[in-house]
Amino acid sequence: MMFGRITGTVVASRKDEKLDGLKLLLVQQVDAYGKITNNYVVAADSVGAGKGEVVLFATGSSARQTTKTEGRPVDAVIMAIVDTWEINGEVMYDKYTADAGMK
Amino acid sequence: MMFGRITGTVVASRKDEKLDGLKLLLVQQVDAYGKITNNYVVAADSVGAGKGEVVLFATGSSARQTTKTEGRPVDAVIMAIVDTWEINGEVMYDKYTADAGMK
Amino acid sequence: MMFGRITGTVVASRKDEKLDGLKLLLVQQVDAYGKITNNYVVAADSVGAGKGEVVLFATGSSARQTTKTEGRPVDAVIMAIVDTWEINGEVMYDKYTADAGMK
Amino acid sequence: MMFGRITGTVVASRKDEKLDGLKLLLVQQVDAYGKITNNYVVAADSVGAGKGEVVLFATGSSARQTTKTEGRPVDAVIMAIVDTWEINGEVMYDKYTADAGMK
Amino acid sequence: MMFGRITGTVVASRKDEKLDGLKLLLVQQVDAYGKITNNYVVAADSVGAGKGEVVLFATGSSARQTTKTEGRPVDAVIMAIVDTWEINGEVMYDKYTADAGMK
Repeated sequence: MMFGRITGTVVASRKDEKLDGLKLLLVQQVDAYGKITNNYVVAADSVGAGKGEVVLFATGSSARQTTKTEGRPVDAVIMAIVDTWEINGEVMYDKYTADAGMK
Repeated sequence: MMFGRITGTVVASRKDEKLDGLKLLLVQQVDAYGKITNNYVVAADSVGAGKGEVVLFATGSSARQTTKTEGRPVDAVIMAIVDTWEINGEVMYDKYTADAGMK
Repeated sequence: MMFGRITGTVVASRKDEKLDGLKLLLVQQVDAYGKITNNYVVAADSVGAGKGEVVLFATGSSARQTTKTEGRPVDAVIMAIVDTWEINGEVMYDKYTADAGMK
Repeated sequence: MMFGRITGTVVASRKDEKLDGLKLLLVQQVDAYGKITNNYVVAADSVGAGKGEVVLFATGSSARQTTKTEGRPVDAVIMAIVDTWEINGEVMYDKYTADAGMK
Repeated sequence: MMFGRITGTVVASRKDEKLDGLKLLLVQQVDAYGKITNNYVVAADSVGAGKGEVVLFATGSSARQTTKTEGRPVDAVIMAIVDTWEINGEVMYDKYTADAGMK
């Protein structure tokens, strides 16, 4: 899994019926040090993530293991909203103190 | 999932029987800012996408989750035609206003 | 899926029994403009592709969806021989007119 | 599979229910020569790995083959703690003699 | 599939029970011209490959299709020992004539 920040929404009215009801979000990858990168992926949302929130996303067949995405043609899913993570005891990201650029 | 623009068609008369009836399109990847890249993939079409349309495509086993591609040997599928997407509220692509280069 | 040119054959007499009877070919990737690249993959053949032919190959679990590769430990399969493809109406490859370097 | 060192922990209280009870760890990739790289992945823990331990992790659908991760939306799993490995007879890593930087 | 040379062994006594009995080898990737690269992967052995042998390995879910790896959390498997391969009729590798550096 990788970290990402919810950056935008994707609207697609003509689509495979198996995508009906799924919310598609644009996720900007965040590296392990909490720095935003320039890599993006479109992912289905399974947790009600909001704009600016930092999340975990999974790719490949694992993206179809949430209740909302089972059997659907999606290869990336947002399945958790991150509270915090640390590296060697140093907090790299905390949702309550992250600056506006991150939140 | 990633964004792409339908750029061409692929014709293959001798093929595995499980590919029969599938339309294979050449998709040129579009980045999150709506800029065309130089990366291409051949994908099966599940939504009747036309030349120049901007689409979403999925790869890997997820490409076999549409009704049209189930059980077939394809690792990329076009499963939605994109109307619009935005990043931090700024529209990056809109199918009704995209210039000719994009459309 | 990606384009490739059949460049060679691989012989392996000691192997997992599930590989028995499969023909393993060396495929040199061809880009969307019909230019040969320096990337290679070993793929199982499901269509009787011959030396020099330009083909489509699929990777990952999709490589196990042809009748010949079902349930076998292969992660790449040649499942179509390409006649032609075009980008924005311009033919990038045509099997009947491709020069010797390509054929 | 790849080598990695357990570097941190990830806390996510709002998540897909299928993630409940899983421990999510931040893994820093270690190359074949035992040198730490700057690549990270978030992986589910199936073996009770502790901070600083060098582990093996698997990605993709294989990450769902442990008893703890079966059917869950995770695309990376820690499934072994490494004692040692060697290249051409030369020990590249040994958990009992690794220096503090590695342990 | 890709070519690789068996370069070392990995010992892990504490691991997921589904790894029990599997031999884990360090594989150094070999390119299509028979040149050793600096890329390594840890793979499960399904054919009794020995140190220095040149093999074929598969990755992803295909790594679980051999009798020895079925249902196990491994994302790479060695499933064939290579005798020889050629590109455009020129032998790139032959196990009986390969020099010591390769064998």
